[in-house]
Amino acid sequence: MNVVPAGVTPTKAAIRREAEAPQSLVVSFGADQPLMMDAGVTLSPVTIAYQTYGTLNADKSNAILVCHALTGDQHVANPNPLTGKPGWWSTMVGAGKPVDTDRYFVIASNVIGGCMGTTGPASINPATGRAYALDLPVVTIRDMVRAQAMLVDYLGIDTLFCVAGGSMGGMQVLQWAATYPERVFSAMPIATAARHSSQNIAFHEVGRQAVMADPDWCGGRYLDEGKYPSKGLAVARMAAHITYLSDEALQRKFGRKLQSRSAPTFSFDADFQIENYLRYQGLSFVDRFDANSYLYVTRACDYFDLASDYGGSLAAAFKGSKTRFCVVSFSSDWLYPTSASRAIVHALNAGGASVSFVEIATDRGHDAFLLDDPEFSATARGFLDGAARARGLPPPPDQTHAAS
Amino acid sequence: MNVVPAGVTPTKAAIRREAEAPQSLVVSFGADQPLMMDAGVTLSPVTIAYQTYGTLNADKSNAILVCHALTGDQHVANPNPLTGKPGWWSTMVGAGKPVDTDRYFVIASNVIGGCMGTTGPASINPATGRAYALDLPVVTIRDMVRAQAMLVDYLGIDTLFCVAGGSMGGMQVLQWAATYPERVFSAMPIATAARHSSQNIAFHEVGRQAVMADPDWCGGRYLDEGKYPSKGLAVARMAAHITYLSDEALQRKFGRKLQSRSAPTFSFDADFQIENYLRYQGLSFVDRFDANSYLYVTRACDYFDLASDYGGSLAAAFKGSKTRFCVVSFSSDWLYPTSASRAIVHALNAGGASVSFVEIATDRGHDAFLLDDPEFSATARGFLDGAARARGLPPPPDQTHAAS
Repeated sequence: MNVVPAGVTPTKAAIRREAEAPQSLVVSFGADQPLMMDAGVTLSPVTIAYQTYGTLNADKSNAILVCHALTGDQHVANPNPLTGKPGWWSTMVGAGKPVDTDRYFVIASNVIGGCMGTTGPASINPATGRAYALDLPVVTIRDMVRAQAMLVDYLGIDTLFCVAGGSMGGMQVLQWAATYPERVFSAMPIATAARHSSQNIAFHEVGRQAVMADPDWCGGRYLDEGKYPSKGLAVARMAAHITYLSDEALQRKFGRKLQSRSAPTFSFDADFQIENYLRYQGLSFVDRFDANSYLYVTRACDYFDLASDYGGSLAAAFKGSKTRFCVVSFSSDWLYPTSASRAIVHALNAGGASVSFVEIATDRGHDAFLLDDPEFSATARGFLDGAARARGLPPPPDQTHAAS
Repeated sequence: MNVVPAGVTPTKAAIRREAEAPQSLVVSFGADQPLMMDAGVTLSPVTIAYQTYGTLNADKSNAILVCHALTGDQHVANPNPLTGKPGWWSTMVGAGKPVDTDRYFVIASNVIGGCMGTTGPASINPATGRAYALDLPVVTIRDMVRAQAMLVDYLGIDTLFCVAGGSMGGMQVLQWAATYPERVFSAMPIATAARHSSQNIAFHEVGRQAVMADPDWCGGRYLDEGKYPSKGLAVARMAAHITYLSDEALQRKFGRKLQSRSAPTFSFDADFQIENYLRYQGLSFVDRFDANSYLYVTRACDYFDLASDYGGSLAAAFKGSKTRFCVVSFSSDWLYPTSASRAIVHALNAGGASVSFVEIATDRGHDAFLLDDPEFSATARGFLDGAARARGLPPPPDQTHAAS
């Protein structure tokens, strides 16, 4: 199906298609169910694109909500319709995997402000018949979570067995636990922070300025103009991508190795493998992500400061929480370093919550949460097993005999 | 004096003026003295713009060459002719200061590839009558040092009492010590590395791509076209600037403080002080630096790998050196971290050189070498004092009596 309106450049037609008619499950909420936004306005209608994996049990007690990171989406464990690549967390989610779809019912939705079918800046604004672009209100992490709660309501689920996610997904996990403590039995915030640091904001601002510096951004109206700010968005992605990897990992993977040549060219070509790699990351990103969405999701992270809604006390956000937490950080993550996870753990302890904390030793940096790591997998599996016992869920199929 | 050719946009006229007719001392080398470049070509004519401070003594044994960093220049201790601000190392260089111009004769030249009067991409190519732009051969750190040696020869100086510099300036210091060991009595490489890491290259590549993504870059021919890639260069500077500051310093200075408002605007304005600061850094940079020069100086750093010229052994680069070294790093510098300085120190020790090493405790990140820091000042002063005694230079004026 091709729903690209006449006049839109076919170059980015696939992005437009997924934004408007996603290859995904979809639920739309009409005028009777507007989304209340932190910006002080309501959004309506609201469409949420989502995927599910596994089977919801009879008492609806085995649902895990997986929250995606900045440029992730709902395609957690199935091939991505835009890239054809495996889902972004297919190492973790699937039959027999740590988030075991033979045991749990997994839900993942595209965030508000995203571009994979949930209402975002590339969606049609019913008031104008054109894409919202920057007319969409600025979105916050709490807005994303409110929308997810509408989806969870729609699915008839009262309490989520677990909410899990890394990076921006981890922010949503923390927001869920703070806003809907009675609806979150367990929570796994991974490689994240309870507030965006000054350096975090700085890197995001560079990315936004790179997009907005591109004349093809057209003040955000590039879809109307049949243009696309590919160069600016690619630069934004390149800068961001450096922050996802550790210095050590870059040195180990690329070092100063030259790209398909034995001597430097003394030019501005991509002499070094790292240059070639970064250029590829930039180019491939613009084929799968909407530039305005990039502005919205980065802004949502920047505005995130959970304590600010609780008189500046993060502990107050979790006071009296009965949710079981497992906080995970990665030793070489300098974007959301272990110190940021420790701050969460301290606040949870101060708030009297049940919390375990694991720092995974790795040189792979922030992106480690997306990669196959035995210690991380074992941590997630162990935590969910323990929570499942506490929740009274049956043991996994292959342990049924041993446990009976 | 206005030497801006007709047709050149007046917007960046001041940059063009300093490139062509600098407010600085200038020496030009003609066809009989071409610069041999690592790219395998010669460059001629070559102009070097420089400044000196203090007085060269009779036996020419008190000269200190100060090498500037990426976007620095020869205006070490006098007001900058473009910005009107104090020279970039006026905290360190001057009468009675650690690099004491009452005692030492200080030389500082703009690097080859720069834009403050030394031959660079904004200089007129005599073969075409137009600016070189990307027709200038790619420049290396060794090319910069070869040009400096021509200047030192011209000044009639055989042995430099000291070569000192931070960041890219520190690379030049290391290159001087390796290429001309007998001409360098002492050396102070500061906040630097003997080779550019993969992450270092990555950040520079982002900056170059940001410049080249700007349509006003015009394939490097913006001067001919009367344009200037201000937006791209500003984005490049913003990204780079983050790497010059530590996470801690950003959090201390800016944190999540809002800019002249009490609540977020829920927009893409510069809500946060850090955003406003970064935008200012980007905007002010484009008024003082040539975009093509930015490509050249970043590329020179990327190509820097001193050991590669010595069979992969950094120790071999310094084998048998009689130069006295003082290596300085800053604890919160993550661009050229202390580990990179330690690698230099290990190589110097392995090569049998005389070396002292100081890591300055600070939260101010890489830029600490440009800032007033009592421990850093005392380190530099102490090292130069010791070297001066070994060199047989008279004590500073106020110590003459006590020492006699």
